[in-house]
Amino acid sequence: MREFILYSRKGLTSPSFNLDDLPGSGGRMDLAARCVISALWMSRQMRRDSRIYLNLNGPPDPPVTLFFDGDGLRKVSPDGRNVATWIQKVLKKRYTFDESEWKEVKNGIFLSNKSFRDLIKDNEDKQFYVLHEEGEDIRGIKIADNPVFVLGDHIGLPKIEKKFTKRFDMKKISLGSESYFSSQSITLVQNELDRRKI
Amino acid sequence: MREFILYSRKGLTSPSFNLDDLPGSGGRMDLAARCVISALWMSRQMRRDSRIYLNLNGPPDPPVTLFFDGDGLRKVSPDGRNVATWIQKVLKKRYTFDESEWKEVKNGIFLSNKSFRDLIKDNEDKQFYVLHEEGEDIRGIKIADNPVFVLGDHIGLPKIEKKFTKRFDMKKISLGSESYFSSQSITLVQNELDRRKI
Repeated sequence: MREFILYSRKGLTSPSFNLDDLPGSGGRMDLAARCVISALWMSRQMRRDSRIYLNLNGPPDPPVTLFFDGDGLRKVSPDGRNVATWIQKVLKKRYTFDESEWKEVKNGIFLSNKSFRDLIKDNEDKQFYVLHEEGEDIRGIKIADNPVFVLGDHIGLPKIEKKFTKRFDMKKISLGSESYFSSQSITLVQNELDRRKI
Repeated sequence: MREFILYSRKGLTSPSFNLDDLPGSGGRMDLAARCVISALWMSRQMRRDSRIYLNLNGPPDPPVTLFFDGDGLRKVSPDGRNVATWIQKVLKKRYTFDESEWKEVKNGIFLSNKSFRDLIKDNEDKQFYVLHEEGEDIRGIKIADNPVFVLGDHIGLPKIEKKFTKRFDMKKISLGSESYFSSQSITLVQNELDRRKI
């Protein structure tokens, strides 16, 4: 299993964003949608072994997390607008159940009001990897089974959350000398895992 | 300079596609737009050393090619809908000039009715690389200066165009054992070139 946790600082936590303006009204929901595509699709198949958590921290009522499970996902197609439509459908189900635990709202898409910290704590038995420009090159390190990759959005993780992650075993990794979009980073990580058959 | 040529089999050759339905009405214009983003953007900067040619072969009047020059591009932002809006604006200028040669229609975006074959012939002094599942792994090969990468869309290059490319020196390369979306492939190629500082 490969897992990705995306911290989205401004991603809207209600369905009231405009599909025609995902960057603005959605709080860079275009970016979040692209990350889902990079994490869960290849050319001719879905990645049934991968999952991504979109942890949204924008207005009006943060946090909320959508969890996309490649193994159960149905009907979603790999284009940004379509993924955003599904995010919107799932967010419409907020406040209709006890959100402290996951509920599968659509095939393969789960919702809860878990925070970034909850996600980290829930996965603390696994090895975390956090992308960092000064981290070790991913090509040169050993990668554990069932790795969990932690990513910020275009703004990056807030200082207070960075500090929180220091309590856990997080390996800092880089993808070479440049810095990439979160969605591009996920593609590069997935390729490295594909090559190693992890 | 790094160049990418994308052969889009169904990409619409008029501006009459619906921005709310890029996959359908645009002939997978979502895919073309994502390729432009992968080719020309990193996290905090544009790739001023990169160019991408979108060779569109869909209805109603193929071919037409849009050429995005990272060095001159202005005002475009890296989200799919925004890039598609610019593609539409540029296509609106069809038939307003002699299209046999490039014309810069917007800052950094050029239009002509050049065909896929024209693009190959125009660049024949450079080294071509074509993505192929049975090609040599990109990590193990020497990459020439000013490389040109040739990619198909989700359907791939038509047989007749594949046959045409055989007249030229095209190195077949792969990106590991899996096969990726064109936009993901461009991200992987760019990362390899970044690492080698080509």
